[in-house]
Amino acid sequence: MPYRSPIADFRFLMDHVVGFDQVAATDRYADATSDTCDAILTEAAKMCDEVLAPLQRAGDQHPAVLENGNVRTSPGFADGYKAIAEGGWIGISAPAVHGGMDLPITLAMAVNEMMAGACLSLQLNPLMTQGQIEALEHHASDAIKDMYLPKLISGEWSGTMNLTEPQAGSDVGALRSKADPLNDGSYAVSGQKIYISWADNDFTENVCHLVLARLPDAPAGVKGISLFMVPKIILNEDGSLGDRNALRVVSLEHKMGLHGSPTAVMAYDNAKGWLVGEPNAGLAAMFTMMNNARLGVATQGIGVAEAAYQHALTYAMDRKQGRAGGSGAIAEHADVRRMLASMKADTFAARAISMANAVAIDMATATGDAAWDARAALLTPIAKAFGTDIGVEVAATGIQTHGGMGFIEETGAAQFARDVRVTTIYEGTNGIQAMDLVARKMADNGEAAFALLDEVEAAAEAAKTSKPDLAEPVWHAAETLRETTEWLVAQDVQTRFAGAVPYLRAFARVLGGHYHLTAALQGDATRARLAAFYIKRILPEHAALLAHVQEGADDLMAITLDDLVA
Amino acid sequence: MPYRSPIADFRFLMDHVVGFDQVAATDRYADATSDTCDAILTEAAKMCDEVLAPLQRAGDQHPAVLENGNVRTSPGFADGYKAIAEGGWIGISAPAVHGGMDLPITLAMAVNEMMAGACLSLQLNPLMTQGQIEALEHHASDAIKDMYLPKLISGEWSGTMNLTEPQAGSDVGALRSKADPLNDGSYAVSGQKIYISWADNDFTENVCHLVLARLPDAPAGVKGISLFMVPKIILNEDGSLGDRNALRVVSLEHKMGLHGSPTAVMAYDNAKGWLVGEPNAGLAAMFTMMNNARLGVATQGIGVAEAAYQHALTYAMDRKQGRAGGSGAIAEHADVRRMLASMKADTFAARAISMANAVAIDMATATGDAAWDARAALLTPIAKAFGTDIGVEVAATGIQTHGGMGFIEETGAAQFARDVRVTTIYEGTNGIQAMDLVARKMADNGEAAFALLDEVEAAAEAAKTSKPDLAEPVWHAAETLRETTEWLVAQDVQTRFAGAVPYLRAFARVLGGHYHLTAALQGDATRARLAAFYIKRILPEHAALLAHVQEGADDLMAITLDDLVA
Repeated sequence: MPYRSPIADFRFLMDHVVGFDQVAATDRYADATSDTCDAILTEAAKMCDEVLAPLQRAGDQHPAVLENGNVRTSPGFADGYKAIAEGGWIGISAPAVHGGMDLPITLAMAVNEMMAGACLSLQLNPLMTQGQIEALEHHASDAIKDMYLPKLISGEWSGTMNLTEPQAGSDVGALRSKADPLNDGSYAVSGQKIYISWADNDFTENVCHLVLARLPDAPAGVKGISLFMVPKIILNEDGSLGDRNALRVVSLEHKMGLHGSPTAVMAYDNAKGWLVGEPNAGLAAMFTMMNNARLGVATQGIGVAEAAYQHALTYAMDRKQGRAGGSGAIAEHADVRRMLASMKADTFAARAISMANAVAIDMATATGDAAWDARAALLTPIAKAFGTDIGVEVAATGIQTHGGMGFIEETGAAQFARDVRVTTIYEGTNGIQAMDLVARKMADNGEAAFALLDEVEAAAEAAKTSKPDLAEPVWHAAETLRETTEWLVAQDVQTRFAGAVPYLRAFARVLGGHYHLTAALQGDATRARLAAFYIKRILPEHAALLAHVQEGADDLMAITLDDLVA
Repeated sequence: MPYRSPIADFRFLMDHVVGFDQVAATDRYADATSDTCDAILTEAAKMCDEVLAPLQRAGDQHPAVLENGNVRTSPGFADGYKAIAEGGWIGISAPAVHGGMDLPITLAMAVNEMMAGACLSLQLNPLMTQGQIEALEHHASDAIKDMYLPKLISGEWSGTMNLTEPQAGSDVGALRSKADPLNDGSYAVSGQKIYISWADNDFTENVCHLVLARLPDAPAGVKGISLFMVPKIILNEDGSLGDRNALRVVSLEHKMGLHGSPTAVMAYDNAKGWLVGEPNAGLAAMFTMMNNARLGVATQGIGVAEAAYQHALTYAMDRKQGRAGGSGAIAEHADVRRMLASMKADTFAARAISMANAVAIDMATATGDAAWDARAALLTPIAKAFGTDIGVEVAATGIQTHGGMGFIEETGAAQFARDVRVTTIYEGTNGIQAMDLVARKMADNGEAAFALLDEVEAAAEAAKTSKPDLAEPVWHAAETLRETTEWLVAQDVQTRFAGAVPYLRAFARVLGGHYHLTAALQGDATRARLAAFYIKRILPEHAALLAHVQEGADDLMAITLDDLVA
């Protein structure tokens, strides 16, 4: 069975679990009617299933290559990209004034997940462009917006993000690329950037690079970084395409997976660029881009989890072996059932968290309410780290479900694991997400976290009569998380960091329990059975994770580097 | 820093943790003096570090290929194999009468782990041969032993195991290959076998295949399977090499990793073979081979974990980034410290379990005591599944420690993850190991498990005065495991299978706590700090796993195949 976009799950989550009705009830998103949502999901699913999914293996087997300085993409990718662009799927949540659909991020993220499940390496291209659209919308001058946004939203041009430099890694403050002002209001941008996803392609007329660089005499560190638009083809004054800019793809990386997506080293040698936003305020603009990009990466993890699950399920239903009883398929075996149920339950939990995150973003946009902003900010690192960790774990379980066939590349199970591996790393490693959660996102003394836990506990409290066996453990898990959170916000930053990763995971586990409980209350018997599996068998993991957190930093930092070498 | 064999850890485990002194005190292994052990470990380490480790990347980058029906191996592998063979490392625990060293399995497994850490794909070759030596030693006629064992032990010939057929997978009873008696006492063996590791090479004079097949009129299922020796080159009566046999390598698999090890589809077309053991008793012989092979695969997982850890540690100590304090290296960051400590602590736990398993095998051999046999049988699935799961997890954490560099193949971090991935699958998937643990290995009503838990609890009890903060949690974890085990052995097989995988993991977690506690008592402050990390931060995982087990099968099997498709 080839990949099938899980539109029923999206509709169920939107209608019954993550409160999309609140979004649809705002003036801002009055167009997001039920019929419109159905139409969007159905049409996008059709494209994902029929056009993109067949390209997934080709991207792995025929990687993008660099020829004479130009990137040649995998067979069929140009057609796949055309389908994405022409469907309008890049600009679902982009402003209508520049050609977007102006619909909620929630819908855009659902479509992003479907595209990721169908063909991750190609989906990364419009995902990068979406981030650029977002950054320009919030920070660029009207002139730049008018020249670039229509082309980016239509997909005629694509966008990239140029942040990392070889010596700096995640430490953005250490970057050295520079931008010298020219007398026409533009800048001469020079430097080398690495890990540039979709730095070039052979199917868009232009590639628009957003590049972080330092102005002359800029302050040291993160306060001296500015953002520049540096297009591959320089625009004439009327917006038409002019000369080639002084930038080039130096090389493509040889990666573990995601071969269809060219990852480049880029060189800028006095390339012409234009300032986006205020001087020395580039990091703020980049964070705009990265926040939604992080949610986008969450959808990548979840999309691959869905695809790997479907792939493994098909195998387990077809493969006859042993005395399994029933159909005779290996899916009848208890341990295979356990693997499949855990894959499905975890994918649902991760999807619910990312959809709830998207709803919070939409509500913040629609209402301007700071509490929704705080909710979105809190959920973003959780959605990113948990969604991508689940992507990696489900893909690994998918391999295991295949037995020996899982290790053979022709089966396709291995590709999911190789492709999704990068998602726990890029857009900020999952360790960085966890540090963001316990430090920046809890600089409010945990206010946003406690508000969310209040809702989780109230929902569990309300469910104690109808579903006591599910509601009780969710309530207790939330309470344990609350207690640990109260402890955590009183600790210094080193202690928070020491337990950041297990804390984030425990938070996600509790939220997963909450959304599964909601699904059990609102859905059919199938959803209730999956919820019981998650809440009774997987949720208990939170206690060990929180015990880890409460150990603090002392014992950990007492382990010296000499100890580690010994 | 290139790979360095962890000989200090082996010596510490043997001398202070897993009771190797008992082995050395037996008449059977009186030769295994401290000096001999030192000499073996030191010499083997030298070869691993200097000869094998430099081949590891070449095996990945230049896979074995099939040319005109013959396998051409990766560059340098022939020399590496020669070093292994000439060092006598294939026959460390093989009988002296046929040229082996007759030393304990414990030493052989230590050397196997070092070879696996240095170059997994090449190490798999002698590992297969060792299994064959074991099977022949226990089941073959003297004539076959005399003709084959000296050449296998010297490494002039290599051995393979031919079990799986396309339609049968893990269900050995479904195999169809057949063997027709010829009038000279040999058999004509025909059939197709898949997943044959090191089915051929260009550096041994002969390749000896042990093949499972059915005699005419054999009973159906597992009771009608016999084992045959089918050499690539048929031996003349004087044992010299004669004609080529009617077998061929049909194709090599394109695998996720372990590219240096050719994995073949083999075709036998009336190939000449000789019965090993009794007719229809092939499975018993194969199990002899598989039991120690399972421990061997455990050492593969642990070896890769060690290598991936060392690789990540080197990166984390060299890489300067951010405001880490101390050396400025990323290893100073709390979250990176957490990753490194977890890798090292888990590797130690897995190594201790596999070494304890080897000691039990040696004691069973030396004393004939059934209790040692039962101990070895109990530990084997735990060592295999946990050792290889830890291999996969540590390699994944190694990638994560590298950040973006982890996804780039040139770094080498990804290869560890790709290579080790097969170890959770072959020699019986880890799900099958877990089912073996809860069914066959607990057919004694848990007697062997309770005997081991008695020792764990007694040791924790004795440590309560000197190390209360470590001894208490280990004792409680063991007690929780005991209670769950008491419950488990009273359940039907479906219930046991439903919780088999989390049960095995919890058992390994508790044993890891036990060995870390012992290390804290017997070792220096470094070992005590690592033990504290494991016992306080990782061991708590056991409670969630055992809660999962105690949920039984009902809720799990209530999830229908329709639910999974929904």
